Amino acid sequence: DLIRKGTEEILPDDALELKLQNSIKSKQPLEVKCGCDPSRPDLHLGHSVILRKMRDFQDLGHNVTLLIGDFTAMIGDPSGRNKLRPQIDQKIIKENMQTYINQAGCILDMKHVRIAYNSKWLKEIDFLNLINICSKITVSRMIEREDFNKRYKSGIPIFLHEFLYPIAQAYDSVHLKADIELGGTDQKFNLLMARDLQREFNINPQVVITTPIIEGTDGKEKMSKSLNNFIGLTEKPSDMYGKILSIPDELILRYFEFCTWSSLKEVKDIKKRSQGESWDPRNEKRSLARKIVEIYHSREKANKAELDFDNLFIKKDIPDNIPTFSITEKDFLIDSIVKSKIISSRSEFKRLVKQGAVTVDGKKVDDFRVKASTLKLKTIKIGKRKFLQLI
Amino acid sequence: DLIRKGTEEILPDDALELKLQNSIKSKQPLEVKCGCDPSRPDLHLGHSVILRKMRDFQDLGHNVTLLIGDFTAMIGDPSGRNKLRPQIDQKIIKENMQTYINQAGCILDMKHVRIAYNSKWLKEIDFLNLINICSKITVSRMIEREDFNKRYKSGIPIFLHEFLYPIAQAYDSVHLKADIELGGTDQKFNLLMARDLQREFNINPQVVITTPIIEGTDGKEKMSKSLNNFIGLTEKPSDMYGKILSIPDELILRYFEFCTWSSLKEVKDIKKRSQGESWDPRNEKRSLARKIVEIYHSREKANKAELDFDNLFIKKDIPDNIPTFSITEKDFLIDSIVKSKIISSRSEFKRLVKQGAVTVDGKKVDDFRVKASTLKLKTIKIGKRKFLQLI
Repeated sequence: DLIRKGTEEILPDDALELKLQNSIKSKQPLEVKCGCDPSRPDLHLGHSVILRKMRDFQDLGHNVTLLIGDFTAMIGDPSGRNKLRPQIDQKIIKENMQTYINQAGCILDMKHVRIAYNSKWLKEIDFLNLINICSKITVSRMIEREDFNKRYKSGIPIFLHEFLYPIAQAYDSVHLKADIELGGTDQKFNLLMARDLQREFNINPQVVITTPIIEGTDGKEKMSKSLNNFIGLTEKPSDMYGKILSIPDELILRYFEFCTWSSLKEVKDIKKRSQGESWDPRNEKRSLARKIVEIYHSREKANKAELDFDNLFIKKDIPDNIPTFSITEKDFLIDSIVKSKIISSRSEFKRLVKQGAVTVDGKKVDDFRVKASTLKLKTIKIGKRKFLQLI
Repeated sequence: DLIRKGTEEILPDDALELKLQNSIKSKQPLEVKCGCDPSRPDLHLGHSVILRKMRDFQDLGHNVTLLIGDFTAMIGDPSGRNKLRPQIDQKIIKENMQTYINQAGCILDMKHVRIAYNSKWLKEIDFLNLINICSKITVSRMIEREDFNKRYKSGIPIFLHEFLYPIAQAYDSVHLKADIELGGTDQKFNLLMARDLQREFNINPQVVITTPIIEGTDGKEKMSKSLNNFIGLTEKPSDMYGKILSIPDELILRYFEFCTWSSLKEVKDIKKRSQGESWDPRNEKRSLARKIVEIYHSREKANKAELDFDNLFIKKDIPDNIPTFSITEKDFLIDSIVKSKIISSRSEFKRLVKQGAVTVDGKKVDDFRVKASTLKLKTIKIGKRKFLQLI
């Protein structure tokens, strides 16, 4: 049940049970594999779902391997890109991974995680080995994969090397003799391919456990840096706290389940409350935010973040979920305000500034030509009811 | 025109002209590549078509490379087979190639043919190189290939390594910087793929010249050892002569064009005669047979084969094209005769033997229990008009 919590699918379900039982009987820990992309070192709450699942396996005494896809990163998965990704410098990969490890350390016991770079074995594979590996997989099996299928049917080119990505990832599981592989739901095809290949190499096929892709602070799209709806694992306590308070109420339960250490029972209780009459989303969200800040910082910092937030927002009657707008160093406040569409025109904004209706953290703005970057993360109030935060 | 004679297609036609002109201007010979399969050392007249084309390039002063696909042979082309071909022993490959070279020496000037084994460079290709090569070819381009397309559409599995065959063959042309590649019409797709890949590697794409697949002695199927309709290049003069006389008249012109050194003018003359009233297929066939035996043996032996044939067949009033039937060491004559369907039952054959109506090269057969192998290549006459030759 501990394993089951916070997962999307377990394939095949009965094989997991069998593996766990055998492991207990033989006192032989299971090999748990989880891949990560060395080209993106920044982790956010979306990534924490899978890290937490790895931690569960760690706590049960199994061997957890963090597979760093320094070789596969060059091929580029489902991306739909036509060209090879540029080969990442080995030094940058090492740096990225140190960043990654530092962040993952909030969730995993990194002392007992094995780090494996797949270039180590994949670059040793020659043409002959590869012919042998490829002879075990059919083309139609490959085109079954949803994104390949879509592209094939609509005439968008799939380049042959893209077929080598699932093969390489599957071969990693052969090499590591993985019992279990964790991955996002978008990785399901690749994870299952590994089962096929392991079988061909006479290795007991791995159990595939997928974890859900959680939505970002906008509540619509999946959490991602490029959509600017993410909560980074290294964000300051106050930012983290504020961002969590800004999520839509519908996400509260999902975040409790997938982004905290709440037990199944606690999650059930929250679910029950959410369907009852006394449901107080604001309070639940405050408790959620405290829990999450606590994971990545500390209880003290979580409490302080809540206090600061209350001082700033509640006492000044500022709502929790104020919209945010991304800026660069060079932007002027006036341009950002208009682009954010909170105000319809430059002249309206100028008028409001003249009237003294624009304040930043309670202080009046006198000059509309101020640079936006100097106001970063402050709360801009425009008129009586409009709020904006620049990030 | 010399080049054009005896070919099926030249792709693209104008590029060939350009390459030949540039070669003459720069006094730089062209690189002509032709692949051969090291798993099948026995050559027959069907193979001679392409060897003759290579010889034409040799005579024009170009560099001819005989590419021995010792690496690609393991993958197995269009075969439709699911499994890898067994890896052929390097020693057997060397032996096969010596046999091949001995036979090809009847047509090519082997002293000036370069022999290249593609394992030399292909086995050096690692996974990373291969990713790079594969990134230049699309999946749909691959499935365009007729046999892949058929199999894909009808759900017959294509294994992924089969896609690597055209890639490997194409890479050979990249490595050799081939200007021209010769191949059977069934190789057209692979030969054109090499053009794509050469272009991607900034090499002037090769011109593809395909040669026709000629029919065997039955006049229906393509010449092949397994169909037992072949004329081997090392067959005895008398067998070669006899087999050629047994081909159907419709093939005379094709054999003249593709299997002899007859000039274009001679071929045209024969064509003209064949459409006229004085067309004498028997005589033309005798001339064809002499020409072919001469290529693989000598003029003297060709003449002697003709003389022997006349003594045996014409003087004894035996027709040229008597049916043949394959036997093994263990077969009894009576079983072979019945299986060949020339006689409908064992009892009829026994009756005919008793009547003295069965002769072998003119001598009566007394005992129907004779072993078939002792009568090999002799002419068996049964009754007044039935003839059979056991081979």
